[in-house]
Amino acid sequence: MRSIDLNSDLAEGYGAYRITEDEALLEVISSANMACGLHAGDPEIMARICRLAKAKGVAVGAHPGFPDLWGFGRRRIPFSAAEIERLIAYQLGAAQAMAVYAGHRISYVKTHGALGNMAEEDREVANAVIRAVKAVDASLAILAGPYGEQAPAAAASGLRTVAEIYADRGYTEEGRLIPRGQPGAMILDPDLAADRVIAMIDAKAIVTAGRTQLPTRIDSVCVHGDSPHAVETARLLRRRLEQAGFAIAPFSAAARDAA
Amino acid sequence: MRSIDLNSDLAEGYGAYRITEDEALLEVISSANMACGLHAGDPEIMARICRLAKAKGVAVGAHPGFPDLWGFGRRRIPFSAAEIERLIAYQLGAAQAMAVYAGHRISYVKTHGALGNMAEEDREVANAVIRAVKAVDASLAILAGPYGEQAPAAAASGLRTVAEIYADRGYTEEGRLIPRGQPGAMILDPDLAADRVIAMIDAKAIVTAGRTQLPTRIDSVCVHGDSPHAVETARLLRRRLEQAGFAIAPFSAAARDAA
Amino acid sequence: MRSIDLNSDLAEGYGAYRITEDEALLEVISSANMACGLHAGDPEIMARICRLAKAKGVAVGAHPGFPDLWGFGRRRIPFSAAEIERLIAYQLGAAQAMAVYAGHRISYVKTHGALGNMAEEDREVANAVIRAVKAVDASLAILAGPYGEQAPAAAASGLRTVAEIYADRGYTEEGRLIPRGQPGAMILDPDLAADRVIAMIDAKAIVTAGRTQLPTRIDSVCVHGDSPHAVETARLLRRRLEQAGFAIAPFSAAARDAA
Amino acid sequence: MRSIDLNSDLAEGYGAYRITEDEALLEVISSANMACGLHAGDPEIMARICRLAKAKGVAVGAHPGFPDLWGFGRRRIPFSAAEIERLIAYQLGAAQAMAVYAGHRISYVKTHGALGNMAEEDREVANAVIRAVKAVDASLAILAGPYGEQAPAAAASGLRTVAEIYADRGYTEEGRLIPRGQPGAMILDPDLAADRVIAMIDAKAIVTAGRTQLPTRIDSVCVHGDSPHAVETARLLRRRLEQAGFAIAPFSAAARDAA
Repeated sequence: MRSIDLNSDLAEGYGAYRITEDEALLEVISSANMACGLHAGDPEIMARICRLAKAKGVAVGAHPGFPDLWGFGRRRIPFSAAEIERLIAYQLGAAQAMAVYAGHRISYVKTHGALGNMAEEDREVANAVIRAVKAVDASLAILAGPYGEQAPAAAASGLRTVAEIYADRGYTEEGRLIPRGQPGAMILDPDLAADRVIAMIDAKAIVTAGRTQLPTRIDSVCVHGDSPHAVETARLLRRRLEQAGFAIAPFSAAARDAA
Repeated sequence: MRSIDLNSDLAEGYGAYRITEDEALLEVISSANMACGLHAGDPEIMARICRLAKAKGVAVGAHPGFPDLWGFGRRRIPFSAAEIERLIAYQLGAAQAMAVYAGHRISYVKTHGALGNMAEEDREVANAVIRAVKAVDASLAILAGPYGEQAPAAAASGLRTVAEIYADRGYTEEGRLIPRGQPGAMILDPDLAADRVIAMIDAKAIVTAGRTQLPTRIDSVCVHGDSPHAVETARLLRRRLEQAGFAIAPFSAAARDAA
Repeated sequence: MRSIDLNSDLAEGYGAYRITEDEALLEVISSANMACGLHAGDPEIMARICRLAKAKGVAVGAHPGFPDLWGFGRRRIPFSAAEIERLIAYQLGAAQAMAVYAGHRISYVKTHGALGNMAEEDREVANAVIRAVKAVDASLAILAGPYGEQAPAAAASGLRTVAEIYADRGYTEEGRLIPRGQPGAMILDPDLAADRVIAMIDAKAIVTAGRTQLPTRIDSVCVHGDSPHAVETARLLRRRLEQAGFAIAPFSAAARDAA
Repeated sequence: MRSIDLNSDLAEGYGAYRITEDEALLEVISSANMACGLHAGDPEIMARICRLAKAKGVAVGAHPGFPDLWGFGRRRIPFSAAEIERLIAYQLGAAQAMAVYAGHRISYVKTHGALGNMAEEDREVANAVIRAVKAVDASLAILAGPYGEQAPAAAASGLRTVAEIYADRGYTEEGRLIPRGQPGAMILDPDLAADRVIAMIDAKAIVTAGRTQLPTRIDSVCVHGDSPHAVETARLLRRRLEQAGFAIAPFSAAARDAA
């Protein structure tokens, strides 16, 4: 039986605030990208998510972002690569401690928002991310797009890379996400999104807006946690994948089984 | 030759702000209590301090405080014991990652400001601190006053405790610090402070304002990093201790040598 | 025709976060207590709320709280009375500028959360609130409970006071809110809440949990903006009040008409 | 007797942190650019500065910046012009309230750091600044460089503009500051800085690095508050200007006298 991972952003609340429907999503996904306290998240919500994820067999990844709570980490703040390195290390350490505190562990790192976009586009930023992760814990995997800059940076550094596709986003001919706001950026129909995911897994390739197939291993499928109907979409996608014969399981578990 | 540790708060800047004269203090002390980003400190200053401390053979401890940058962690914010537990875990993890990133390690935990005061006075808070440290890394030592609540809480939990005295503070008959603002709270004359420290080490006891001797092992002497003349006072104290035949060395090194 | 004011907390979002259903509430209430950026709120949401309120004829009050975004202003942080004075002045000025910027005006001040509780209980804190408001704009009204400390402090200082009752909260024999978590603190049934409000207006008195009537003028009824079903409850209350012959209108409009 | 204004950034502390030597500078300057709480400053320091400035006859201007305490407002965060408008309005209102609270008033607005640089370079940002100031208080002056974008934006909008030169900075042929880090950006010798200031005032022109004279009215001279030796430099400049026959007085006082 084939296995595929579903990942989603979680723990993106702060104090009394909530954005993601964490409990519901944890019933559907197999890997939770946990906000680390700078663009969202706080020690309370992080501890709770780790505890719940552990109980449900969901893997947890650190999801570091810029220190920009007001902008939810979506503003491209001109931090230097060296500053980004330290921002990643700090958040990764905090996430690891919260996971251990809650009886779980951090399995991977996925960069958030503007930091993630900059890291996918700019090799220097990607290298900074990878240097930080390698310095703090070289056993962690990097979850990123197969055609962005983080994957080759991680590979060059000896870190394990995990290739993800987005269920609800269109792709450029270069294999990158069509920026939000441009035509074809969002796949709003959940059934269509599910069809595309299955087609890409079957083709072992990203299918671009222009129908080009860009070959890639696919380890994980990202379903957005903070879009409206996120839970519904994730549920439908999971059901469709299961009907197509996939088991939903963390890529990290697969890795451990193989080891 | 007898050995004693000198500890001081460091890394208490934030962005362009500075309070402690970190470079100068690192020439004098043997253990640096590093702010972890919530009451002071940021990833940049933390990485730099860890690098410098490593180069100079200075041990680094996590110095977590309340998330209160404006109040410098000195306001008693009514967090629950459970929330304090998570606040400690978060900051400890961030500190550990910054230390590892910079090629160093965290050796101990010392609580800061209002959090520290509450933990010394209230066993429930002390237990929360200890639970967090034990969950994240049970090999760490707890640096605290011998007559406060943290030391017995740590001992009951199996964590190593390290007993500190303050060079420049007076003590109540209960062996606790006379609160700032009360008569006898501060020892302003550095020579007098040095005399007292040596007397207490010789007596193996805290000497209270009323001249009572409260017996205790003394592993470390705290010199305040954020008071005026902090560096001068620390230097004089170090010279006086060396003249009295003490080697200044991290308690954590002593522990490692013994192991 | 009798007129009554309905007030509710609004603008309690921050960046991408939302708590209150601001648009829906603005259709129901006549006075909006606007968060000022320290416990919640930011310049974007404040400008938008002021613009919408202006368009709908809803009065806007400054709703200052403690600088505690993580705690949503609900933690009792031990600020001194003098610090509270400055905290109020700062937030009030920011709120006034945002209102003017959006073509509206601030009509009153209502303190938020822990700051509000402390001001209602402690005359020294109440005096600090009143001194700040009087220094910044002595024409503003103070919206507060008739049996708390803010109303007499305002009256003694020559500021106009506006007496509010809570639709969904029980009252002690002293005329203060039964603290959350205690029996009788919350009136969960909206119909019952509406009955109580009308009974109190008719009786010109607060009716306590023990059925004592504490006489008071009633100018405004607070419906909570951040509780579940807040909008539904507010709508029902408004309908019930209109059926009972009340016009829903800002107390500040009444004041202006009378002037 | 000729009169000239000396302005400097003040109140750039936060809680226990300090950067500028506010008390000493207030003895030297005639206009204080007051941080408003987002890149630096807090209600405590703002109230104190306003009180001191009032006592010493020093005018106070609002000195708004980006909400970036960590970056001290020096990072170019990509806020939209509309967001900048609201950021300015918010901070201006807070500053006005703190000034009124302390018995003083805000006379002008000068943008800080990265926000200031963006406003000087980009007419759209400059227009946003001006729209905000005009909406909140159209009687305020705009303190800016004579060859930047804020001055013409203010003039076009009917706001009073006040032209400043920098004592310690070199100018491009376009009349803008040579960016820090480039050759000629900083004039480190205080005597040389004083000579240049007097030469520019005499010539009624900015003198560029290439010795071109760009004609302009000069109303104020900026001395940096946060550079090392800031106070010393400001004192020397004041003495030299007084020796050259200038009275040091707020431009706003001159304006009031003329009115």
